[in-house]
Amino acid sequence: MKAMLTVLTIMGLWAGRAWAGDEAPTALSNKEAIDLVQTHANYLWTLIAAALVFFMQAGFAMVEAGFTRAKNAVNILMKNLMDFSMGSLIYWAIGFGLMFGASATGWFGTSGFFLADFSPDGDPWVLAFWMFQAVFAATAATIVSGAMAERTKFTGYMLYSIFVCGLIYPIFGSWAWGSLHEGSGWLEGLGFIDFAGSTVVHSVGGWAALAGAIVLGPRLGKYQSDGRIRPIPGHNMPLAALGVFILWLGWFGFNPGSTTTADKSIAMIFVNTNLAAATGAVFALLTSWFKFGKPEVSMSLNGALAGLVGITAGCANVSPASAVIIGAVAGVLVVFSVLFLDRIRIDDPVGAVSVHGVCGAWGTLAAGIFNIGGTSAKIIGVQLLGIGACFVWTFATALIMFKLIDKTVGLRVSPEEETEGLDSMEHAGSAYPDFEVSSI
Amino acid sequence: MKAMLTVLTIMGLWAGRAWAGDEAPTALSNKEAIDLVQTHANYLWTLIAAALVFFMQAGFAMVEAGFTRAKNAVNILMKNLMDFSMGSLIYWAIGFGLMFGASATGWFGTSGFFLADFSPDGDPWVLAFWMFQAVFAATAATIVSGAMAERTKFTGYMLYSIFVCGLIYPIFGSWAWGSLHEGSGWLEGLGFIDFAGSTVVHSVGGWAALAGAIVLGPRLGKYQSDGRIRPIPGHNMPLAALGVFILWLGWFGFNPGSTTTADKSIAMIFVNTNLAAATGAVFALLTSWFKFGKPEVSMSLNGALAGLVGITAGCANVSPASAVIIGAVAGVLVVFSVLFLDRIRIDDPVGAVSVHGVCGAWGTLAAGIFNIGGTSAKIIGVQLLGIGACFVWTFATALIMFKLIDKTVGLRVSPEEETEGLDSMEHAGSAYPDFEVSSI
Amino acid sequence: MKAMLTVLTIMGLWAGRAWAGDEAPTALSNKEAIDLVQTHANYLWTLIAAALVFFMQAGFAMVEAGFTRAKNAVNILMKNLMDFSMGSLIYWAIGFGLMFGASATGWFGTSGFFLADFSPDGDPWVLAFWMFQAVFAATAATIVSGAMAERTKFTGYMLYSIFVCGLIYPIFGSWAWGSLHEGSGWLEGLGFIDFAGSTVVHSVGGWAALAGAIVLGPRLGKYQSDGRIRPIPGHNMPLAALGVFILWLGWFGFNPGSTTTADKSIAMIFVNTNLAAATGAVFALLTSWFKFGKPEVSMSLNGALAGLVGITAGCANVSPASAVIIGAVAGVLVVFSVLFLDRIRIDDPVGAVSVHGVCGAWGTLAAGIFNIGGTSAKIIGVQLLGIGACFVWTFATALIMFKLIDKTVGLRVSPEEETEGLDSMEHAGSAYPDFEVSSI
Repeated sequence: MKAMLTVLTIMGLWAGRAWAGDEAPTALSNKEAIDLVQTHANYLWTLIAAALVFFMQAGFAMVEAGFTRAKNAVNILMKNLMDFSMGSLIYWAIGFGLMFGASATGWFGTSGFFLADFSPDGDPWVLAFWMFQAVFAATAATIVSGAMAERTKFTGYMLYSIFVCGLIYPIFGSWAWGSLHEGSGWLEGLGFIDFAGSTVVHSVGGWAALAGAIVLGPRLGKYQSDGRIRPIPGHNMPLAALGVFILWLGWFGFNPGSTTTADKSIAMIFVNTNLAAATGAVFALLTSWFKFGKPEVSMSLNGALAGLVGITAGCANVSPASAVIIGAVAGVLVVFSVLFLDRIRIDDPVGAVSVHGVCGAWGTLAAGIFNIGGTSAKIIGVQLLGIGACFVWTFATALIMFKLIDKTVGLRVSPEEETEGLDSMEHAGSAYPDFEVSSI
Repeated sequence: MKAMLTVLTIMGLWAGRAWAGDEAPTALSNKEAIDLVQTHANYLWTLIAAALVFFMQAGFAMVEAGFTRAKNAVNILMKNLMDFSMGSLIYWAIGFGLMFGASATGWFGTSGFFLADFSPDGDPWVLAFWMFQAVFAATAATIVSGAMAERTKFTGYMLYSIFVCGLIYPIFGSWAWGSLHEGSGWLEGLGFIDFAGSTVVHSVGGWAALAGAIVLGPRLGKYQSDGRIRPIPGHNMPLAALGVFILWLGWFGFNPGSTTTADKSIAMIFVNTNLAAATGAVFALLTSWFKFGKPEVSMSLNGALAGLVGITAGCANVSPASAVIIGAVAGVLVVFSVLFLDRIRIDDPVGAVSVHGVCGAWGTLAAGIFNIGGTSAKIIGVQLLGIGACFVWTFATALIMFKLIDKTVGLRVSPEEETEGLDSMEHAGSAYPDFEVSSI
Repeated sequence: MKAMLTVLTIMGLWAGRAWAGDEAPTALSNKEAIDLVQTHANYLWTLIAAALVFFMQAGFAMVEAGFTRAKNAVNILMKNLMDFSMGSLIYWAIGFGLMFGASATGWFGTSGFFLADFSPDGDPWVLAFWMFQAVFAATAATIVSGAMAERTKFTGYMLYSIFVCGLIYPIFGSWAWGSLHEGSGWLEGLGFIDFAGSTVVHSVGGWAALAGAIVLGPRLGKYQSDGRIRPIPGHNMPLAALGVFILWLGWFGFNPGSTTTADKSIAMIFVNTNLAAATGAVFALLTSWFKFGKPEVSMSLNGALAGLVGITAGCANVSPASAVIIGAVAGVLVVFSVLFLDRIRIDDPVGAVSVHGVCGAWGTLAAGIFNIGGTSAKIIGVQLLGIGACFVWTFATALIMFKLIDKTVGLRVSPEEETEGLDSMEHAGSAYPDFEVSSI
């Protein structure tokens, strides 16, 4: 408030304030001053976008709580709160340095831990950039919690959340986005296109989620001995819908914010993001209507998310008409992927593997196919290589990690706890104490 | 992410990045470079504002779900998701071209369908502008769903949503805001003042809602044979309140974003928007207290929305003190309008006709009365003409449309479906399966 | 919309629009034009930040409703709606002038009531600044409603809300932030550091809440005659968690927006805000786990808020590593403070006194201890003086105010009303009419 008040000395003499204390334009050439104003706009956009991406945490919390049972709602809320909180700290301590620190090899960075490269007298851009990257890292971790909902121990959850934000995500990230003393991460060096992270963020989250769901096994009663699949409906559709709207909003930071620059290019990214989300929702609705005879709410909501994940890689290098196609395919794909996972008895309560893993892979491929500057076998090849590398790295390391956690602190709650609900057993509380709740 | 990383080559050498790849300031004169930075700020503001207006979809979903019964909650959520999703696509394909395309007559545009005028090498402003206009178009469609809640078939809903976004809204919009090869829409040419759409968006939504509510008829049991009116309370007040707060937030994009320019003029628009919403809430509360003996929650929430709708036309051309008066009148008006509609047995479950139709008309008139540059009989006359033209066009076309839908695919669900709830019958789901729900 | 359309005359000729009507750059020197673009960025940031802070009202509403019983949910929602609505009006009429008006003494301002210093031809910065300050003022008032929840009369609430926004908050604010004809508020003149209001906003809210909770007395049944404390759990944890995420988002406006300038300094403020919130949540979780044997949800949520309140004073003048420490201490402190207040039988249903009062004081002290430019006994002394002055002024005036309200219109509802629930008795409504609700 101080800088502000030095100018606002007298009410009635409010002057338009052009400059804060940090820079005196008089000392700058016109060209330097113009550059500085543009730089300020870049900071503003990057940080506002980071705030929008942060808000996606609320979206994930609402979607995951809404799509699961009332008896586990406190637990899933706690997990969402904690993976962002712990994720922020781990990414500050370790992850950011691994992902963007100086790297001799192109495989991971080795400097910048604890934001050590920042000095109060130095350029604060590293802080703006860290803020934007930290909310991305936490997104990857949050995706996992949905697929593992309703049966994971809280301590096990906290551990894996640390590993994902501190190790699995930033190392893959360094391959595709990370900086080097000279050159770039190895995937980036090959020309891999993943502008805002269909693979880097969403597939990493989705494949880690897949490993977790496999190690955990399905929820009790989900797949019955006679072969039937019992639907376990989510307990609060208004929350889930609210969550999807919040995520859609957050994606307007996620995709166009990845420019980290306030320029004209963000317009097309906004439009592509919105069109793909819209077609994703419409096509998932139509697909569910065709498959089940009714327009299904959870599929439609997941369809919007599928479209958003799908356009994330190519949002800056495909046309709006291509975005419509990408979203439509994602909307169909997500429904069939959810059904397929159920058929092979992998229990993913919220559809996270299908939305983020599968549609993330589709979006990364599509960014090559629909590339506005034309495509080629080489472009497609690199995209497939990146998709494959992500799956191998993430699924393998996550599988090892979950097995290790399972053997040590334990990953799954006891059957009694699962039946009773994680809220009362793990947190000694209830999400809705004034209501009669009867989760199956 | 690529542009970003080329500069961030070495951790510890993070430089403030002033320019992205698209423009090289060295090639520009100082004046051109300054203009370009301002242009970037305009893009930023227009698109952030569009994101805020998008979020109003979540607000409408929460208000409409909260103000209706639990047995129909999935249905209303689906409608909100779908009218934005389909609305975005229809507005991309058809609506935008009708509203802002080249027009020889001043009555509708005939170019720019499917964003065809945009080329990757061209100026992307059309994309930023489309994004902002698309979220407006969807708002008009969403308003209708509230008034028709709890008894409309989903297929009928999807059809009318397409018509509103693709035809009714953009054609009226072209009269008041649309561009021409030379000149402007006919209402705009007369000097009609509707800065952010009290009439163009809200009254269009409100009068279409009125036509829909009339064609549908009231919910079963609402108006009893002995003349009594049965109150059908909304099932979730926290959701409704959250929705109002989200809408209020979104209006900070809706009104000041309508400048599509980042300049000083947005300050007064913010202040006016906030003061009118605040007085709307206070005066609706006081009116309900006086009329019913208790401060009533749904009236107070609608009062805030009434104030927001009321200030939308004049937010840029009335003083803050006038905004207080406009909001106060809207807050009183909305209560009496809700009571009046009930008296003439038009069943509008959420008060959409009163909030958007009636207060939209009031706001448009008020923009003339309180015009900061003075008023005149001519100004008032044009405002009244615009209000009347909106009512005639919208109500008539919507009435025909709803009658057509009713005669073909059907507009209203069966009495059994309505009694049972739309969620189980239309969507084979329930919003709250873990709770005991007993909607009347 | 008008300015926009004059340029968009022909579809296909969409030009990037650099300037709106209000300024013609041709008449400006390059230096003046550069200053003007920066000024526009400052407006943009201040007003977007104000919108984010406004949205904190939704966060408080959800936290307070979620942490209290279902039978009082409508009441708490109404209070949140009304304190922002009435607060906006009172701050427009009186508060802003008292806080920032011309002052001969350094103890309160005496000009600028009703935004009288603004003229349509004048500089609109006062409007942008008012908007940002108004949402701060309403925050202080809202904090109080949580501590006094579930037993306060609605009329009494409306009265004290007017006093807090119109008198108690702005007068203290003028000491720490207010302008003078020459010089500054007396605390500001001494060098008091409270960048975004740990003391000015949060402690004022917290200590007023303390006075209110004391005058009201505890909820019926909370402290039993045999000395036991009955837990009264909040009725809706998803709402409470959503509220915390919304508040965290809003704080990205609250703290960095307090620059009211779009420059590089906002990056560090973002990072500090986020790190302190994250550590606050983690340390409150760990503390609750250690104290109660289970990781407790309401403590963890309040821990995030505690970290946010703690970093508010020093967000611009401490390092990220210090922010981590400040958040950690706040997270521990809030748990012990909640337990302590229960031990001395002060009933604060949502923990507002601990979060805002106690952690506000801690944050203000910490801003002196961890000052990036070094600390001194004098700095610490001034911080302690500010903390003390806030407590004395706020607690004393709030105590008198609540006693006066209690003796006149009455502050507390009748025992029957409290048992039955405030919703049915004060508002003739219910938050959840379709559900079976059994609040204790």
